[in-house]
Amino acid sequence: MSYEFIRNQRVARLATVDQNGHPYVVPICYVYDGRFIFFVLDQKPKKVKLLELKRVRNIIINPQVSLVIDKYYEDWQKLGFVTILGEANLLKNGKEHDRVILMLKDKYIQYRAMDINYNPIIKITVSKIIPWGYLDSIPY
Amino acid sequence: MSYEFIRNQRVARLATVDQNGHPYVVPICYVYDGRFIFFVLDQKPKKVKLLELKRVRNIIINPQVSLVIDKYYEDWQKLGFVTILGEANLLKNGKEHDRVILMLKDKYIQYRAMDINYNPIIKITVSKIIPWGYLDSIPY
Repeated sequence: MSYEFIRNQRVARLATVDQNGHPYVVPICYVYDGRFIFFVLDQKPKKVKLLELKRVRNIIINPQVSLVIDKYYEDWQKLGFVTILGEANLLKNGKEHDRVILMLKDKYIQYRAMDINYNPIIKITVSKIIPWGYLDSIPY
Repeated sequence: MSYEFIRNQRVARLATVDQNGHPYVVPICYVYDGRFIFFVLDQKPKKVKLLELKRVRNIIINPQVSLVIDKYYEDWQKLGFVTILGEANLLKNGKEHDRVILMLKDKYIQYRAMDINYNPIIKITVSKIIPWGYLDSIPY
């Protein structure tokens, strides 16, 4: 149930933590293969170099991350979310990197027109999934 | 621009950090008065006591929090978000507490039928707003 819910949503919100213990949250587009969550550092556009993004600097200092994936409805009976805990690391290239680029292009048609083939990927090893409420499997 | 965008959205995602430096993210419904963001510990329903919620235990240990407020569109040209940094503290009662309950019931009709009048509120003193992308002021 969590698997389908996570796989089907279009956006997650990722929290990282800096050296002072301050969190930092951003939205991300991602893919999930049942064990790992992946997202690519893309140019949607960003003004700074990809590896200097705050989220990347945080992950290098502290790889512990959390994501929330939810759907908001005005009917609060329908609300549901999963909070995910995990550890992040950077994939700069390699077979896994290339496979994830294909998965991202498969899920997000928007990526097919973007030059992301050589962009760094963040790989999150999921250690815990905490579900809450009603998790339907209807795509976003 | 950020003010209207923040005020008009219906859901934010809040990150807190525990004693081990691990972040934890959840969706929240909130109000914003231009200086502070407030949300109430409600029963949507939760299984644990309100003050034992992980987000509350984290805030007591480390008051530094982050929120992201965004709108997702399949047209990525329209994407926009604000990341907010701030410090959280608990309001158990008092004039400010009562004023916030009214603000929440004004923004969310759902709260009018819920027994939240005496529930603890989390008050976030906003220290930084980091806008990205296209922030329209169209309500969620």
